[in-house]
Amino acid sequence: MMIKEQSNPWCIVQDVMDAAREGFYESLFSLGNGYMGVRGFHEDDCHKLPHERSQFIAGIFDAIDSGVTDMVNTPHYLHTTFTVDGEPFDPHEGKILDYKSVLNMKEGTLTRTILWENNQGQITKIEKERFMSLHQLHLACLRYTLTPMNYSGELMIETGIDGHVRNNPIHDDQMKANNKTVKLLEEVDVTGGVRNGYMEMVTKTRQDAIAESYVVKPLIPEEDIVENTKIQRDAYVCSRFMIRACQDRPYTFEKYISIFTSRDQVEGLKDTTLRLSEEASHIGYSALHHDHAQAWAKKWQIADIEISGNHRIQQAIRYNIFQLIQTNAEHDHRVSIGARGIMHGRYKGCYFWDTEIFMLPFFLYTNPEAAKNLLLYRYYTLEGARDNAKALNLKGVKYPWMSSADGREQCESWDTGSCEIHINGDIPYAIHHYYQVTGDVDFILDYGAEIYIETARYWSSRFSYDKGQDIYNMLFVKGPNEYGGVTLNNTYTTFMARHNLELAIEGIALLKEHQRWHDLAEKLDFDHKELDRWQDIRDKAVIHYDEGRQLYIEDQHFFDLEPVSLDDFKDGETPLYQKICFDRLQRYRVLKQADVIQLMTLLPKAFTQAEKMAAWHTYEPITLHDSTLSYGTHALFAATLGLDEAAWDYFEKSVVLDMEDVMHNTDTEGIHFASLGISWQAIIFGFAGVVVEEDGLSMYPRMPQQWDKIQFKIIYRKNLMDVTIMGNAAEVTLCEESQTEHIDMKIWHQVLSLEKGKSKQVNKTAAQINNQQQLG
Amino acid sequence: MMIKEQSNPWCIVQDVMDAAREGFYESLFSLGNGYMGVRGFHEDDCHKLPHERSQFIAGIFDAIDSGVTDMVNTPHYLHTTFTVDGEPFDPHEGKILDYKSVLNMKEGTLTRTILWENNQGQITKIEKERFMSLHQLHLACLRYTLTPMNYSGELMIETGIDGHVRNNPIHDDQMKANNKTVKLLEEVDVTGGVRNGYMEMVTKTRQDAIAESYVVKPLIPEEDIVENTKIQRDAYVCSRFMIRACQDRPYTFEKYISIFTSRDQVEGLKDTTLRLSEEASHIGYSALHHDHAQAWAKKWQIADIEISGNHRIQQAIRYNIFQLIQTNAEHDHRVSIGARGIMHGRYKGCYFWDTEIFMLPFFLYTNPEAAKNLLLYRYYTLEGARDNAKALNLKGVKYPWMSSADGREQCESWDTGSCEIHINGDIPYAIHHYYQVTGDVDFILDYGAEIYIETARYWSSRFSYDKGQDIYNMLFVKGPNEYGGVTLNNTYTTFMARHNLELAIEGIALLKEHQRWHDLAEKLDFDHKELDRWQDIRDKAVIHYDEGRQLYIEDQHFFDLEPVSLDDFKDGETPLYQKICFDRLQRYRVLKQADVIQLMTLLPKAFTQAEKMAAWHTYEPITLHDSTLSYGTHALFAATLGLDEAAWDYFEKSVVLDMEDVMHNTDTEGIHFASLGISWQAIIFGFAGVVVEEDGLSMYPRMPQQWDKIQFKIIYRKNLMDVTIMGNAAEVTLCEESQTEHIDMKIWHQVLSLEKGKSKQVNKTAAQINNQQQLG
Repeated sequence: MMIKEQSNPWCIVQDVMDAAREGFYESLFSLGNGYMGVRGFHEDDCHKLPHERSQFIAGIFDAIDSGVTDMVNTPHYLHTTFTVDGEPFDPHEGKILDYKSVLNMKEGTLTRTILWENNQGQITKIEKERFMSLHQLHLACLRYTLTPMNYSGELMIETGIDGHVRNNPIHDDQMKANNKTVKLLEEVDVTGGVRNGYMEMVTKTRQDAIAESYVVKPLIPEEDIVENTKIQRDAYVCSRFMIRACQDRPYTFEKYISIFTSRDQVEGLKDTTLRLSEEASHIGYSALHHDHAQAWAKKWQIADIEISGNHRIQQAIRYNIFQLIQTNAEHDHRVSIGARGIMHGRYKGCYFWDTEIFMLPFFLYTNPEAAKNLLLYRYYTLEGARDNAKALNLKGVKYPWMSSADGREQCESWDTGSCEIHINGDIPYAIHHYYQVTGDVDFILDYGAEIYIETARYWSSRFSYDKGQDIYNMLFVKGPNEYGGVTLNNTYTTFMARHNLELAIEGIALLKEHQRWHDLAEKLDFDHKELDRWQDIRDKAVIHYDEGRQLYIEDQHFFDLEPVSLDDFKDGETPLYQKICFDRLQRYRVLKQADVIQLMTLLPKAFTQAEKMAAWHTYEPITLHDSTLSYGTHALFAATLGLDEAAWDYFEKSVVLDMEDVMHNTDTEGIHFASLGISWQAIIFGFAGVVVEEDGLSMYPRMPQQWDKIQFKIIYRKNLMDVTIMGNAAEVTLCEESQTEHIDMKIWHQVLSLEKGKSKQVNKTAAQINNQQQLG
Repeated sequence: MMIKEQSNPWCIVQDVMDAAREGFYESLFSLGNGYMGVRGFHEDDCHKLPHERSQFIAGIFDAIDSGVTDMVNTPHYLHTTFTVDGEPFDPHEGKILDYKSVLNMKEGTLTRTILWENNQGQITKIEKERFMSLHQLHLACLRYTLTPMNYSGELMIETGIDGHVRNNPIHDDQMKANNKTVKLLEEVDVTGGVRNGYMEMVTKTRQDAIAESYVVKPLIPEEDIVENTKIQRDAYVCSRFMIRACQDRPYTFEKYISIFTSRDQVEGLKDTTLRLSEEASHIGYSALHHDHAQAWAKKWQIADIEISGNHRIQQAIRYNIFQLIQTNAEHDHRVSIGARGIMHGRYKGCYFWDTEIFMLPFFLYTNPEAAKNLLLYRYYTLEGARDNAKALNLKGVKYPWMSSADGREQCESWDTGSCEIHINGDIPYAIHHYYQVTGDVDFILDYGAEIYIETARYWSSRFSYDKGQDIYNMLFVKGPNEYGGVTLNNTYTTFMARHNLELAIEGIALLKEHQRWHDLAEKLDFDHKELDRWQDIRDKAVIHYDEGRQLYIEDQHFFDLEPVSLDDFKDGETPLYQKICFDRLQRYRVLKQADVIQLMTLLPKAFTQAEKMAAWHTYEPITLHDSTLSYGTHALFAATLGLDEAAWDYFEKSVVLDMEDVMHNTDTEGIHFASLGISWQAIIFGFAGVVVEEDGLSMYPRMPQQWDKIQFKIIYRKNLMDVTIMGNAAEVTLCEESQTEHIDMKIWHQVLSLEKGKSKQVNKTAAQINNQQQLG
């Protein structure tokens, strides 16, 4: 499926309506502002089922089973229908004569124009535009215009809030289908203010109250409105306009929707909600849209990556960045980012390691406060994670494989939920990354160190000591490669656990240095013998390594698995697990994604170039990339190894993954946010070669030959760096907004001394170019 | 919890009513006749919830989820209530002045007498007796008598069928609770025949129709009946009698209930059902009871085990046998026996390896036709088992860990359902056992060989070949010890798989010998190369064996597990998994039950005495017996090893397991049928030392010193053998009913030539006695 290239790289355009592809476009055209998200369904499509019109609010989860939550589908505030001389609009009846949807990523709007001929031959033009304000997060706006093209007649428009919504909780086991829907909204209360033109609905889940209010402003001459009614019935409020419509005249209404929930802790939930929609209606659509676009401009100013020489990739990168920004509640540390954001109910809206390992870096380098906020979510869910560890009869905290509001495990598949434990090392890793990039020592002292210590305690109790051999085994563990079975000594997990233990040891040193250790040690009831055991495990944890081949082996039983030829299995990009069950796959020597390669991208300094090449040659040929986390990781790794062709091929698949529906599941699965994030990483850490470590910022750009020029900004320790790379030349500016006056930066091993407000250029040396060509 | 010893070893008596123990007694006093089962709840206890009054019918399952079924709780045909001067009977109000429940196992009846004083001081004696006819399987009878002890007044009795029933599907993961109930009866149709005094209810699940009809016969003088009403309303039919009751006069009614379902394939379901209840009412309670008791007498004639010198154990053995007979639908090959029979909804009524390995031997030696019928169930579910294999991308058939109507996998826990695969070897093992005992070659030719071959095909595709080492590994497998993780080369499973492969090879030889191979080979599309692979796997499958210690090791990673002291954990007989989660348990070197010991009881000839002792000394000390399958297996194994004291201790726990609620869960879990069966095996194969092999029947009795004498019958190749053992002497009679005129039998290695109708005696030699004492 290819999206036609359009002249404007800020826009994605759909110009044919195809029922079979509607699900895909619904995912693709999702809009959000971090507070709330809405899929790109047509507000006026009467065929959508109550669970198919998904409108989510970050952090609104409700129990669907004992201990299991689902992200709640909220009342449909975009709901709109119309009739022409009594015949209702139905996009699947009559004829669509012309169709265009445009997602404008620069301004965050979705506009659609449909030319529809009904069965009576009456042609109506439908123009609609929606946005979720990035300026005022509780506000969504819709502008809707009908124009009779070849008739005059009676138009009836209904627009309101439809509370008849349902959830369709999808089991996290990818093999289990669920066609059952559930009603999570227990109580619906509707009110309407006839005089002021507003309608309001308050719904309650077991846990939260959700208030949605709207005001409709018809931009229609009074004399054309035959009737203006407000309808209030069970779980449904709407405004109805009967219009005496004349040919060629446009009839427009604007709808200002405001949304608050009990989680927002505002005083007077109903009134607050109502007030905002009323205020918005007074401000008006254009002004609100202006504010919204300004907010987006501010985001793009730092987050944009400009590429010359490849329009499609330019568009795709922007799509990735656009969606990442859209789905992140940057000021609410009680939520993180779901694997499918707030744009799809898949995985019950839960948060995975996807956030910390795949998405966080984008925020970390372009919006560090947002990154901090994401990490704070993990701090504020320590209590739930502590309960998880207890439930597993282990010490410390165990971050859940799937997390929702409170950090308690939401994963219902035993082998994944109990055995895929590496997330407990991934989160400390991400905290350390944050610390390296921001230098925010207070964060470590206030939050990070406690997480380091509590996760270290978990690992300490999770390893099994073998007295006879004086080694520590990690038994019954599953790595990121989910095609691997429950096995022993998974290399990825053990490395991350060791790294975690080291961070905990360093964290204690840092606390001591700042006279903070005493208090925390007391709070955590710390026994200094714990430290001895951590050091012992760090030194004696089993890692399978083949010295002859300089090869890190995925786990203890990797070479017991049946070798197979991928050609016997792989059928395009469709994941193999749709053809072969996980139980069977685990005995084949094939990878869903490559653990060891993943590991080497995270801890690049821990491995030699030879070890990296050995891993590449061993694992890459048997990796199926049936995880959307895989392509980007391989692109990044290949780029750092100088494998230009492979890097480009993998990058291309990763960066257009959702935009071009590479996995054929963007419709049913929603947008793969981790893939968006890892594509960004492949550019910045892979092609641009940005590396941040204790000793500073460095870059080793390896520009794909497909690009003429790439330009981006990153924030490092409150300094804003503007980077331009053109082939073997790079230019860096320490922008005016930076905190420091000058900073050193290593590019291609050459140290640049940067001064605020000034640019510096550097060229790759001939020797370096040579060397890379040999590698490639 | 001890049941008081009573003078009659055929009866179990409860003489105190204790609300906290009611659940236990409900399980204990379950009645059934193979066709239907009913828990021992009080028919007149108004506090029972709709899902707590469990009445099941063998084979009536209905879908509760996609592909998942539950055994259906059927309308309550015992439902009865009464009032005294308008005050309803409530066992938890007023006072219970006297109470007695008697389960008469000889006659299969449950009788109860309650002396109840209501809040007005009126004392009523309630006498009730129920049975499920073993003579006419579709018939249940209830006799109910009320006697006003200190008053004359108005009694109102209601008795009928209450269709307001629900199911409470319990997740098979022992850690997941479910408090939700579901309604599986979709449609209820009630009719009453006022003139004939019958009432009838037909209910429908998605799959089956269930018809229940009853006739009430009041044995009350006409003039005392003020009113006789029939009530028909939504899902409820009943007969109401208003009685002008006089002090000291008993008022009795008899209720004849008949039950048929669409599975019975009778013509005219409603009429058939009605006719039987009417016929029964004409025959009358006493005559029906007589027929029922006669049917039981016939069963006991062969199945009873008489023990002198230990009243409690005598009672317990009978209880085990009684329940096994009660729960087996001996003529319906479309069903097997659930882990909790048709007496409890635990495990959704599903059939496990419990049937073939633990229960089948009892039937095999006392009712071979019933055993054949149980095995036929597996033949007729081959299609479902074939689908299971396909779903796992494997060849042949995979019998489900949990089976209901059609043989499709019902287990919802991944690690158990997918990994605990030994059942596929257990079933062929049981078929071979059946063949050895009965000599029924036709069964192998018609059914058994096909099962051997199809399961062998499964194993052939389930092993992973390691070319480098020229070995076959069984990867990601879980043995019967469910505290073990998903591991490699589980010894139990590999042995049973190899045995299965051998049976398949032998089966083919047998088919060839009888000119039946050609047809089956064609039907199964057999490739002779398959045979080569089977032989190769048999020879090269990895088994972990320590030559120095002559020790078979449970699996590849057994010695990687953390050794612990059982004393740190074990708290009485409460299963450890209630305190420590399975995920944690799997890393401890503790066993729920001992795989290798289990294996050695099944294939005793495959191991030397030294190997058995090594296994005992290694595994027994770390076995927690948190499976009810464990005690009896250990008793049997210890007995064959001459470890008299251990044998007795384990046997004692096993044989009274439910009768004395050893595991403290007979209330919530129901009766543990596998434990009943293995207790029987511990006596017959353990203490009596019966062994059947290709070359005939032999016995090596090792009488517990706690017994003076034991007498039992077994059927071997259509010969009925009556065996008496007294200490070191044994007497065997080849009974008149036997097919052959004479037969040889080895007892204590001495060959006895038996002639029909005659007894022979033999004594253990002094050397053998000596030898055993040394062993002990």
